Amino acid sequence: MPDLPLMVTGHAAGEAANLLVAGRFLLIFLTARLFAEGMVRWRLPTILGELLAGVLLGVSGLRLVVPPESGVPLSPWLVTQLGFLSDLAPDQVLAVADESFPALQVVASLGLYALLFVTGLESDLDELIAVGGQAVSVACTGVVLPFLLGTGGLMLLFHVDPVPAVFAGASMTATSIGITASVFAELGMLRRREGLIVIGAAVLDDILGIVILAVVVAFAGDGSLTPGPILQLVAAALVFVLAAIALSRRIGPAFDRLIDVLKAPGELVVAAFVVLFVACFTATAIGLEAALGAFAAGLILSNSSRREAIRDAVTPVVSLFATVFFVLIGTAMDLSVLDPTDPTNRSGLLVALFLLLAAIVGKLASGWSFVSREPTDRLLVGVGMLPRGEVGLIFLGLGTAAGLLSPALEAAILLMVIGTTFLAPLLLRLLASPSMAGAQPSPLR
Amino acid sequence: MPDLPLMVTGHAAGEAANLLVAGRFLLIFLTARLFAEGMVRWRLPTILGELLAGVLLGVSGLRLVVPPESGVPLSPWLVTQLGFLSDLAPDQVLAVADESFPALQVVASLGLYALLFVTGLESDLDELIAVGGQAVSVACTGVVLPFLLGTGGLMLLFHVDPVPAVFAGASMTATSIGITASVFAELGMLRRREGLIVIGAAVLDDILGIVILAVVVAFAGDGSLTPGPILQLVAAALVFVLAAIALSRRIGPAFDRLIDVLKAPGELVVAAFVVLFVACFTATAIGLEAALGAFAAGLILSNSSRREAIRDAVTPVVSLFATVFFVLIGTAMDLSVLDPTDPTNRSGLLVALFLLLAAIVGKLASGWSFVSREPTDRLLVGVGMLPRGEVGLIFLGLGTAAGLLSPALEAAILLMVIGTTFLAPLLLRLLASPSMAGAQPSPLR
Repeated sequence: MPDLPLMVTGHAAGEAANLLVAGRFLLIFLTARLFAEGMVRWRLPTILGELLAGVLLGVSGLRLVVPPESGVPLSPWLVTQLGFLSDLAPDQVLAVADESFPALQVVASLGLYALLFVTGLESDLDELIAVGGQAVSVACTGVVLPFLLGTGGLMLLFHVDPVPAVFAGASMTATSIGITASVFAELGMLRRREGLIVIGAAVLDDILGIVILAVVVAFAGDGSLTPGPILQLVAAALVFVLAAIALSRRIGPAFDRLIDVLKAPGELVVAAFVVLFVACFTATAIGLEAALGAFAAGLILSNSSRREAIRDAVTPVVSLFATVFFVLIGTAMDLSVLDPTDPTNRSGLLVALFLLLAAIVGKLASGWSFVSREPTDRLLVGVGMLPRGEVGLIFLGLGTAAGLLSPALEAAILLMVIGTTFLAPLLLRLLASPSMAGAQPSPLR
Repeated sequence: MPDLPLMVTGHAAGEAANLLVAGRFLLIFLTARLFAEGMVRWRLPTILGELLAGVLLGVSGLRLVVPPESGVPLSPWLVTQLGFLSDLAPDQVLAVADESFPALQVVASLGLYALLFVTGLESDLDELIAVGGQAVSVACTGVVLPFLLGTGGLMLLFHVDPVPAVFAGASMTATSIGITASVFAELGMLRRREGLIVIGAAVLDDILGIVILAVVVAFAGDGSLTPGPILQLVAAALVFVLAAIALSRRIGPAFDRLIDVLKAPGELVVAAFVVLFVACFTATAIGLEAALGAFAAGLILSNSSRREAIRDAVTPVVSLFATVFFVLIGTAMDLSVLDPTDPTNRSGLLVALFLLLAAIVGKLASGWSFVSREPTDRLLVGVGMLPRGEVGLIFLGLGTAAGLLSPALEAAILLMVIGTTFLAPLLLRLLASPSMAGAQPSPLR
């Protein structure tokens, strides 16, 4: 930008960045709220509205909020308006838009962490441990079956090469704990037996997903698979889970004593976020997902006598920023792959329908993978494991970046992710109906 | 980064970014909390602790949280640790650190907006209007006097050229409404006569500051000063203030009716943030500060019957993210300019002491610039206008970027900003002491 004197450019670029920050939040909050209100009136989970709001604003819709990774250009109308308001040329507006997008993603991550933190906080460790065996069984079946069905089917039926087939299969193993936790909380089913099994299995699924990702990255990277780093990751995951369980018994009371000592204002929410970020940092440092750390942090503080007050203080952060997270998932979904009139889509659509079916069957079957003495709605468990959401999109993004996937297979994986993500909240709502009357919805969402 | 396969790089860079996000929040919350607890025990405003925490973490201290604009390198120890944890080379860690910093600044801005929103919410429009004359007088005197003293003194006593002298003078006109609002809220003085005058004057000061900035940028840019855009800005500011006042009478009840209709969870905090971002966007679009919009949004909703509930929902956001804002101010302060043993500092120190004195005298005098029938603590008003904080740093950053300032003058302006920023909370605390017993501290901070 050498045409303008530096100071003016800096000021104008700063103004454009401020406009984009305020404008994006405004669009996201306003659209998500409108759609969420519609969903509540139709007795559907609000997250569906947030995803749809993202689709409307994103690459498939008005292109007002577009992730730079998508390569899709921002709406020319928006670029003109922002250029007019901030005195910047169109390419400068686009540069500022790309540079300022990661900030939105960090805010979205804060929302996801806060959501999983509150999910952990609302969980009861003893109840989770009581369904531990079932959760392990559901998680493992829900990983192995979709992987085998997907990879095997692609290779045998569609003659896809092994590397892309394995990658597609791996992308089918994920469960979006964010979507599941959000819907179960809104339906008041987090503490029900099925809710506990699904949350436990989704957490384990997240851990298995990290291991699978490491295996696939090694497999696709230089083709050689050394067991050392993988075993290290598995060990780290085990230590992390056991440490979280052990700490959860002790940290609650210690946290309460600390809060009694603290005097500066805002002590509760800041102290809770310190625990949250310690756990996120630790999880990331040993190679796990930060989101897993957020859930662990909530679980660790679930024994605090101030559990309710912590939840009330963190809930506004969830309401604001988890919305941003789910809307951003929607913005990244390119629904044009669903258009059967486009000939380039047709080759992908059959593969896509197969993947979607395999993804649904594989996870649904996990609901029947365990023995239980108590009556359990197995269909509810299977449906709870369905949504791939952001985890599926992360797999897809990595595969695309590595140039592993054909356009047809890329479209097929995206369709599988979109299908399971939208289907799960709808089905959960339908299945939950009969028992809703007596359920106490969580104030979480 | 062409050495590594793209996928691994993407994953490793993402992991490093996640570590930096969690790690920075952790460092900021933990350090700020430790210092804030110390301040509370010494009966000092917590914001002093947050600024000091920033100094400790930032360019003058351990260099763990370093704004890229400062050009100061990150701590080599931190780079090594992050490189070890994420398998990245040192230059890659530095690149990720620079790229991920704007996200922290956006979160800090959200904190500032939330703080000023709650400040507006806690304000009473009629009380503000009642002290309107005094506030205008304080704001104008507090802008004109420091400017004349600073610019005139630099030119007459130190033979500084007109352009840098005008720039330095302009940087002395600012008042940090964030710092003032935070301290007054914590001391329970937002609704006292002196608090109302200072908040009103600080808001007007922000508007005057924008106009002064536009004048100085035009003056320093191509040297020619066209009155058109400046008058346009003044008109926009007037319209904005009058519109905010007019809307504040009507929006409150309309907002209440809207909330009655909304049913999706989190409706109150999301609706409040929609109003907040509409006001921020509007303010930025017409060339004013987004922070001004945030205050206006709070004022507009102060007539809502849900004022208390809105405040309670937004307060955790303030506790978390306004802390980030004040810590970041501290990280950008380079205290090495204060070291008199460094010969390059000596030429600046005399100028610096002069500027600091002029900055203090000019603002203190504003406390005696108005007529009042009721007893008013004029010293308290003058001290409330003292802190330059982030606004002074923004002026400094623009001047440095434009290459207008000599290193000595840069150091002098920084010292003036640091001095007034740290002095104001200390003095306010001392002055507020006698009346503290009966005061009701706001839960805002």
